[in-house]
Amino acid sequence: MPTSSAEATWNGALKDGEGTVGLGSGAYEGPYSFASRFQDGDGTNPEELIGAAEAGCYAMAFANMLDEEGYTPESVHAEAVVTLDAETLEITTVDLTVEATVPDIDEDAFQELANQAKEGCPVSKVLAGADITLDATLA
Amino acid sequence: MPTSSAEATWNGALKDGEGTVGLGSGAYEGPYSFASRFQDGDGTNPEELIGAAEAGCYAMAFANMLDEEGYTPESVHAEAVVTLDAETLEITTVDLTVEATVPDIDEDAFQELANQAKEGCPVSKVLAGADITLDATLA
Repeated sequence: MPTSSAEATWNGALKDGEGTVGLGSGAYEGPYSFASRFQDGDGTNPEELIGAAEAGCYAMAFANMLDEEGYTPESVHAEAVVTLDAETLEITTVDLTVEATVPDIDEDAFQELANQAKEGCPVSKVLAGADITLDATLA
Repeated sequence: MPTSSAEATWNGALKDGEGTVGLGSGAYEGPYSFASRFQDGDGTNPEELIGAAEAGCYAMAFANMLDEEGYTPESVHAEAVVTLDAETLEITTVDLTVEATVPDIDEDAFQELANQAKEGCPVSKVLAGADITLDATLA
């Protein structure tokens, strides 16, 4: 079974500490901090990495489902907005906004498959602790 | 409440298609593909982004919990290995391997706080669909 890895190092305590996070593929390594997570500091943070996982998984899954149903997807663009409740420290919602170019599909079929991709993609399923919403537009 | 965003675009169908994924902070944008997810192709994939989110969240949370309990964490290093079951298309496990340098802490207190960080960090909680395991070592 495919495995993927990543790592992070944190030095110091929370607000005066700093960290780095790196992807196992080597595609990215960079800093993160309390400020990049809870304020407007430079650097990445865990929530946007969750968003990237969901957007990436969704776009690939929706294109595949369209293809399997006989449509020819030209492009699927997905944006994910991830909300961290700073009081409860829970990631409450992942809001997907999707726009796709798919010739010769009607609106109902498009919306049905868009929703199936939201329900079925592996990252959607593993993010069981959040409400995932979808706003899909046929370009 | 803090929100974070990311986006992805997929062009084409599954195996002959290709995508890009980008973080809302601008810290990273790069390609992903069927091969980078299920085989050994170059590029990132959703699972290593999940791993980076978990490792990053864990390292920050554990350092914070140690500090709150009166210890002075010097460094926390976390690696996350994410397994995607290629048959069921489910992310089944996230295996954390952690090594931390924390002066003046005993093994029992270290292990208890290491486990609390695993249970309590926001990304652990949102990844409710996976089994998260922990192997923590006091350096």
